Amino acid sequence: MNKIYNPTPETWSAILERPTKTVDDIELTVKEIFKEVQKNGDAAVAKYTSIFDGVVFENLEVSQQEIENALANVPTELKEAIQLAKSNIEKFHTAQKTAKVEVETVEGVQCWQEKRPIQKVGLYIPGGTAPLFSTVLMLAVPANIAGCKEIVLCSPPDKKGNINSAILYAANLCGVTKILKVGGIQAIAGLTFGTETIPKVYKIFGPGNQFVTVAKQLATQFGVAIDMPAGPSELLVVADDAAVPAFVASDLLSQAEHGVDSQVILVSTSKKLIDDVEEEIQLQLEQLPRKEIAEKAIANSKLIFVENDAIALDLINEYGPEHFIVCTAKDDFYINGIENAGSVFIGNYTPESAGDYASGTNHTLPTNGYAKNYSGVNLDSFTKSMTFQKISEKGIQNIGNAIEIMAEAEGLQAHKNAVTLRLKNLKIEN
Amino acid sequence: MNKIYNPTPETWSAILERPTKTVDDIELTVKEIFKEVQKNGDAAVAKYTSIFDGVVFENLEVSQQEIENALANVPTELKEAIQLAKSNIEKFHTAQKTAKVEVETVEGVQCWQEKRPIQKVGLYIPGGTAPLFSTVLMLAVPANIAGCKEIVLCSPPDKKGNINSAILYAANLCGVTKILKVGGIQAIAGLTFGTETIPKVYKIFGPGNQFVTVAKQLATQFGVAIDMPAGPSELLVVADDAAVPAFVASDLLSQAEHGVDSQVILVSTSKKLIDDVEEEIQLQLEQLPRKEIAEKAIANSKLIFVENDAIALDLINEYGPEHFIVCTAKDDFYINGIENAGSVFIGNYTPESAGDYASGTNHTLPTNGYAKNYSGVNLDSFTKSMTFQKISEKGIQNIGNAIEIMAEAEGLQAHKNAVTLRLKNLKIEN
Repeated sequence: MNKIYNPTPETWSAILERPTKTVDDIELTVKEIFKEVQKNGDAAVAKYTSIFDGVVFENLEVSQQEIENALANVPTELKEAIQLAKSNIEKFHTAQKTAKVEVETVEGVQCWQEKRPIQKVGLYIPGGTAPLFSTVLMLAVPANIAGCKEIVLCSPPDKKGNINSAILYAANLCGVTKILKVGGIQAIAGLTFGTETIPKVYKIFGPGNQFVTVAKQLATQFGVAIDMPAGPSELLVVADDAAVPAFVASDLLSQAEHGVDSQVILVSTSKKLIDDVEEEIQLQLEQLPRKEIAEKAIANSKLIFVENDAIALDLINEYGPEHFIVCTAKDDFYINGIENAGSVFIGNYTPESAGDYASGTNHTLPTNGYAKNYSGVNLDSFTKSMTFQKISEKGIQNIGNAIEIMAEAEGLQAHKNAVTLRLKNLKIEN
Repeated sequence: MNKIYNPTPETWSAILERPTKTVDDIELTVKEIFKEVQKNGDAAVAKYTSIFDGVVFENLEVSQQEIENALANVPTELKEAIQLAKSNIEKFHTAQKTAKVEVETVEGVQCWQEKRPIQKVGLYIPGGTAPLFSTVLMLAVPANIAGCKEIVLCSPPDKKGNINSAILYAANLCGVTKILKVGGIQAIAGLTFGTETIPKVYKIFGPGNQFVTVAKQLATQFGVAIDMPAGPSELLVVADDAAVPAFVASDLLSQAEHGVDSQVILVSTSKKLIDDVEEEIQLQLEQLPRKEIAEKAIANSKLIFVENDAIALDLINEYGPEHFIVCTAKDDFYINGIENAGSVFIGNYTPESAGDYASGTNHTLPTNGYAKNYSGVNLDSFTKSMTFQKISEKGIQNIGNAIEIMAEAEGLQAHKNAVTLRLKNLKIEN
């Protein structure tokens, strides 16, 4: 761990630097597979599924029988935990619905804004050792509340050609309309172009490895939207003597176990807390099954002492953490002052893992500093805002002349004419 | 004009195809200029301003004196028109403010969502023959309502080194914090990396030519967000015998004058209306100063007859128009059924130019079919949604076990441990 005392603002950006990866070398592979899937559809998808996942299928689509088997496989206590999490996520995201915004800007000029669902969405759920069924909840629940018509889930099959039962259980529970056993670049390419089996979608959500990340970026060049750019997960904790050091250590370690490139930062106005947390980390680290990963991430972590809360807040806003835990005597100062963060966790009894699973907030969040300009996934991520306007005869008389003058000044005579014709017509009628 | 009768759904995508441009050849130029601006800052910006705009400056920033001169130059009636437009845009976008969304998902688990402003935004306003001061209103007004701290406007200088007075007037009126005389690729590169004079921003808004469009795309690879992908402007009108043919023709022509690649489509269940509109277009076209441009766009336009409103609506949703005018006996059917459109204009007295200038809705809208997955610019475009959660001792007891079970099932032991520690602590305390 790197302990840093009173860094000057000029050094912040160097201290807070995130590990960057170059992706140039895999871009070619991604482009190649996209081209092939666009041209050969299912055949190309099958080819790459065989190469990367080592499985050959008759049918990519998960059958009703497979879903029923999965439902039987998932232990009751896990089902109940998933149901509780679903219920909380549902409550929080349902509350995010916005009413139609309607304004008569001047007499006779009625304007309104409505959110309408994105009709077809694709959810990507990584496979591998950690089956991320929690991400199914985080994406499928709001997609359903928003009213998306087609909710297509892609997840890579294991060596036996199966998707993890808990993923299938969650997908079935949350109203996914189609589940496909396909992962990696070929899944994203399939969702982008559509194949005989994979529907073309308008927006792709979900985490993934480097290949999936680059594939999602490439998808945007073909008219598909994505949830947000990706990067390694990160946590920043601000804590002082109001915090329990063992709790802080456990939160830092829960971030560290994600991967060796995870970012773990503690900012504090208390040197004592920093020392206590450091000690606790060593103790707890020994007990972790993913100790090797966590150890490497922790070795790169930063424990930063600053003189006061104002400096701490400035530094945190410059970083813009994905996850931000606040556990201090002045929590309100941080809550009111935080400008850039994905999700904020407040107090001794709010571990990051609560938001990862079951509190109700979404865990798909902007990382890599994107909290400065991107929202985490929320209900609006599955809708688009549309505006409407209806102008009466009185209304066009009220704003028509202003439009004529502005259109003329911009040199757009036909724009002006569309108003002039109508105003003339009203004069003749009256 | 191409009149098409009863096209079968299989032919829709070919009929509705948009003109596509390849941008590969200019990508290299854009990358080159980005690299140079990143490295040499203002010096590189000055170099390309001299090459592309033919001007050499001491200082890129518009001075207070220049702004005062501009204020004196703008005619009073244009000032008043701009003020009316600003007032309407302000009313409509202020109404889009959302309250904090707060939910106690289970007892002791408090979750809330808040929108906070993006701190630094860049607005790009093209120069050239048509000074788009209306776009200044559409971007600066919501940026201000959202509470963005830095609102930086870039616009290319004319040959004399000036920015159009109406643009300066609008920028000053709407609270732009810095105005810079820089355009094209070098402006977008400057906003992306920051230079001695141009501030680095978190999100870039605004229209532009092909070079600006590609530059904005490239900016996203350096962590900057953009408003939306760009494409040629487009209008689809659905009208029947309830519509005044001369009005419909004037709307189609106002779209056509934007550029030779503008998309102009009329869909109708009335053959008579189609013929009448065609005739009116010929009459009105003769009067237009931008006749040559409009004529070319109109030559590529489509007048499509369909048997009934249900087919019309399906076809329109497949197209997803940027601007959608509805003027029929069944307006409500279209208003309720439209799933993909940027902005909707309803009835005989609601020309598209009303929304372009003064009704209050935003004119920065998704084109090129992006209405299927992107919102037009609105208040939320200048904010990001953040979530917060605060869990009490009771709260973690309510959801802690579910988190432990889910974390364990995903193989994330440290995530589980962060909860287990806290639950144990509470048992000891009680």
